[in-house]
Amino acid sequence: MTIKLFDLAGAEPDRRFSPYCWRTKLALAHKGLTVETIPWRFSETHAIEMSGQGRVPVLLDGDKVVSDSWTIAEYLEDTYQHRPFLFGSAEARAPTRFINSWADTVVNGALVRLLLTDIYAHLHEKDRRYFRESREKRFGMPLEEVSADRDTRVVGFRQSLEPARIILAAQPYLAGGRPLYADYILFGCFMWARSISSFRVLTSDDPIYSWRERMLDNLSALARKAPGYSE
Amino acid sequence: MTIKLFDLAGAEPDRRFSPYCWRTKLALAHKGLTVETIPWRFSETHAIEMSGQGRVPVLLDGDKVVSDSWTIAEYLEDTYQHRPFLFGSAEARAPTRFINSWADTVVNGALVRLLLTDIYAHLHEKDRRYFRESREKRFGMPLEEVSADRDTRVVGFRQSLEPARIILAAQPYLAGGRPLYADYILFGCFMWARSISSFRVLTSDDPIYSWRERMLDNLSALARKAPGYSE
Repeated sequence: MTIKLFDLAGAEPDRRFSPYCWRTKLALAHKGLTVETIPWRFSETHAIEMSGQGRVPVLLDGDKVVSDSWTIAEYLEDTYQHRPFLFGSAEARAPTRFINSWADTVVNGALVRLLLTDIYAHLHEKDRRYFRESREKRFGMPLEEVSADRDTRVVGFRQSLEPARIILAAQPYLAGGRPLYADYILFGCFMWARSISSFRVLTSDDPIYSWRERMLDNLSALARKAPGYSE
Repeated sequence: MTIKLFDLAGAEPDRRFSPYCWRTKLALAHKGLTVETIPWRFSETHAIEMSGQGRVPVLLDGDKVVSDSWTIAEYLEDTYQHRPFLFGSAEARAPTRFINSWADTVVNGALVRLLLTDIYAHLHEKDRRYFRESREKRFGMPLEEVSADRDTRVVGFRQSLEPARIILAAQPYLAGGRPLYADYILFGCFMWARSISSFRVLTSDDPIYSWRERMLDNLSALARKAPGYSE
């Protein structure tokens, strides 16, 4: 039975912009697993209520319902052990999880402020009110104000990527010689940006920029072919 | 032949405060290797010139001279393979190196601003002029001004630890169920603080605080027994 994935979509059903869903889609492709993605909008909480929570990604694999991108990655690794590995060893999981925490807090925490109005512009009509209200409550100001200073704020965003830059200046992928889940974690953040925004989050002389190019081409250019903007 | 380590010291020869030397000493203890540490001051560049560079840690193991804490950790893992492992697998090395880059840039970059005057106060007389001049040049202001706002700045420092906090709220060590080099990396930063300062860098309700307590007790309380301050 084909694996199914509820995948956050914009007004256009093929515009899939969740960084967390991207991690899962790349992990599935890495494992060589076929997936049928189901476009999902923020307001469609009923569609995923069998997962016991309200966010995507939600993966359906036969009888199994798995949510949360990290939990899904561990599930795929443990369930499909004879396919290409995502972590490489039990010992590699813990430090990879650190990269996951870093990307969730530092990278996505800074990116959302740069992208907020672009996300809003791509949302389905039925998601807009929820999105504006919840995000304006979170940031304590109108959406438009959050992103207003992004031309200056992006400098700090780029600085915050320094730990990844040091690694990617020394080796082609965060995981070493070839991409593993550590790479999909961070790359998912950039696919979030690419899916909905032409704002230039990296400069072309950045080792992270070159790595992102390689990641766009990996897995038969799965990511490059997806609807999005090139900066 | 006993391994030797040049280890940064203050005015008192037993006050060893380099976060990078701490990583190495903890790695050696984890491997069960005996080491003779040699107190070293910033101005004693001649003593380590055989390493081809001017910073500690510098490890002497028979004919081998190895510098840079990350390079030393890899050297120890590859040379002493039959002793307890520091990474656990080849695949775990790359994501652990990310933690290393993060600690070097984010954690130590923020900590130095909190600790600068305390470091200065513990230096050997012969190191003081070099230290003041080089650090005042780096920060573009007198040492005393860099640390002056630390009571407010420490809030941002604690926030910057969020990626580690998420992991340590979920499991006892960054590496999982027991400490590995990932833990020694971050713990070295806190040993830097502890060695020379009573400034409270963590609050006691922080999962990182509890982890630090466990780390102080590990390896026969090697770290807790070292000259330092309890906050």
